[in-house]
Amino acid sequence: MRGPIRILVLGTGQMGSAVAGLVLRKSGLQLVGAYARRAGRVGMDLGRAIGLDRELSLPIRTELGPLIEDTGPDVAIQATCSTVDDALEEIGACVRRGVHVISIAEEMAFPSYRAPKAAIELDRLATAHGVSVLGTGINPGFVLDLLVVALSGVCADISSITATRVNDLSPYGPTVLVKQGVGLTPEAFRARLSDGSVVGHIGFSESIHMIARALGWRITRIEERREPIVARTRRATPFVTVEPGQVAGCRHTAVGYSGDRPLITLVHPQQVQPHLEGIETGDTIEIFGTPHVRLAGNPEIPGGVATAALAVNMIPRIIVAAPGLHCMTDLPVPAALLGDVRDALGHRGEERFDG
Amino acid sequence: MRGPIRILVLGTGQMGSAVAGLVLRKSGLQLVGAYARRAGRVGMDLGRAIGLDRELSLPIRTELGPLIEDTGPDVAIQATCSTVDDALEEIGACVRRGVHVISIAEEMAFPSYRAPKAAIELDRLATAHGVSVLGTGINPGFVLDLLVVALSGVCADISSITATRVNDLSPYGPTVLVKQGVGLTPEAFRARLSDGSVVGHIGFSESIHMIARALGWRITRIEERREPIVARTRRATPFVTVEPGQVAGCRHTAVGYSGDRPLITLVHPQQVQPHLEGIETGDTIEIFGTPHVRLAGNPEIPGGVATAALAVNMIPRIIVAAPGLHCMTDLPVPAALLGDVRDALGHRGEERFDG
Repeated sequence: MRGPIRILVLGTGQMGSAVAGLVLRKSGLQLVGAYARRAGRVGMDLGRAIGLDRELSLPIRTELGPLIEDTGPDVAIQATCSTVDDALEEIGACVRRGVHVISIAEEMAFPSYRAPKAAIELDRLATAHGVSVLGTGINPGFVLDLLVVALSGVCADISSITATRVNDLSPYGPTVLVKQGVGLTPEAFRARLSDGSVVGHIGFSESIHMIARALGWRITRIEERREPIVARTRRATPFVTVEPGQVAGCRHTAVGYSGDRPLITLVHPQQVQPHLEGIETGDTIEIFGTPHVRLAGNPEIPGGVATAALAVNMIPRIIVAAPGLHCMTDLPVPAALLGDVRDALGHRGEERFDG
Repeated sequence: MRGPIRILVLGTGQMGSAVAGLVLRKSGLQLVGAYARRAGRVGMDLGRAIGLDRELSLPIRTELGPLIEDTGPDVAIQATCSTVDDALEEIGACVRRGVHVISIAEEMAFPSYRAPKAAIELDRLATAHGVSVLGTGINPGFVLDLLVVALSGVCADISSITATRVNDLSPYGPTVLVKQGVGLTPEAFRARLSDGSVVGHIGFSESIHMIARALGWRITRIEERREPIVARTRRATPFVTVEPGQVAGCRHTAVGYSGDRPLITLVHPQQVQPHLEGIETGDTIEIFGTPHVRLAGNPEIPGGVATAALAVNMIPRIIVAAPGLHCMTDLPVPAALLGDVRDALGHRGEERFDG
């Protein structure tokens, strides 16, 4: 059997660390390097940086081009940012050097929405270099889009779709909590919505357009609402304490319309410690069609571990894919990788991997 | 825009009729012909045969080769049988004439289990003729396999999987009821299990191997159990009346082992009128892993309409696929086709459709 599939991780924060840790545990994958944007971590051993009790002899580096050239990865997993604009330079650096890219930047789940021209360019660039680029993650990328599309496949017709994800932000640190306005007064929440520092969920438009494109619906308008979830009891996590009357999170909804007809409604209230007020977390997809389909799970699929798993589990899929820019609905579904990852390439994939 | 995608339906029974009816309602598809095995329907207009109140000017024919040559279909949908052996001749006749095939024969969901040599041959034949062959349906093909694999994609690791489908056979006619032993005494049920006339569900082995191959598990043994579901109350449908003490259906389970370790457990009790004894129908998938994932829906996704929808909704996927024999986990997920089906081909697909 040929050598392992060589993986480069971009980003050594919470998500990059989770991805790196998972790559290390999979047969047939080899972690060959780690890139960080911040100079503060240069030279630190990746094993220490991601919380292992051993060194990996992989120093974190901040110059991406030379890192790629020195380590020769097959696939780079990007966990450095959220927007297409912010993601493009690193992705381009990989693609130009013949490296496939899986990004967990939220907007990369469907980049042609925010950046249609850049998406076309990226598709051309990836095709020219014979590699694939994919955005994935739990949301956007799975629960509120890919899974909705998959379930729609049993339908002869559909009038509308509603999908809801009620989650618990308790595991998350300051970066996430600030974006959701946790701990603010309701007045401060509204002020920070206006100045853009409270953003709620990133990815509704991407999910709506991903679903609509797959189903052949034309979305003419998306309406989003962000409202404070005001705590009635004290809710504390290791990172924040929310007193009654303060904001425990953000109830963010988006509706995709075709003309006046609401086709896709996505609901995603994110807060700390929802169970303290009797709120059950979970994922629910309901398709009003022929047949009527409703699937639900409690609690929600946890976002952090699932996003890292999705990024790693898509590795064989993008190696096998035709070169170009893809979204999750363009490729076969992810599968947990429980054997040697190289076996998941199949004979067609092996030929491509060989070349 | 180019002409519609031309569809030939093989089989004019309950499922073939549902497929034909759905094809007629989709923009961008054109129903060009219908094939039946039984001479009894030769010459009957397909519109009448499938219960429309109008003629379609499409006489049902029983000679498949000439029918294909006269009508020039792009895709054939096969709804004539359950086994690979029984399906191969018709599929071969289509493939040799350059026609893609979607089959709802249960064993075609993963044909390399029952007929590994035939599957290799069929893959070669399809590749040589530049077309694709796919087996699909609600089960096997979706609820107890594709959906399981898709959900596994959020997992970093998995120890075992259990999936359950509790359905209601009330809509089904004699062919299905006989296979499930409905209306028999428990003694007769056991006798007909032995002589093979009661079979329970067809497709457990296919689902287990489809999941295992996608996840990289090696299944060494599958244990199946079929037990009578004995009615305690009278259960009547238009097709059968079951008295207390008689068999209302078959509780069929299958467990896929690796050595002594049970990895995949599939449970599928099928019966008429389960609600009369307080049994709730539904689909449940539970993945014991990191994270733990559980998704459930009540009632079950209805099998008939969903199988017809899946067969039609996969049309753009097999046109775009690389030529060869595929299973559902090899291709992008099905999506409800709510616009012009040709738009679902994408630019790569259009090139292939053109050529």
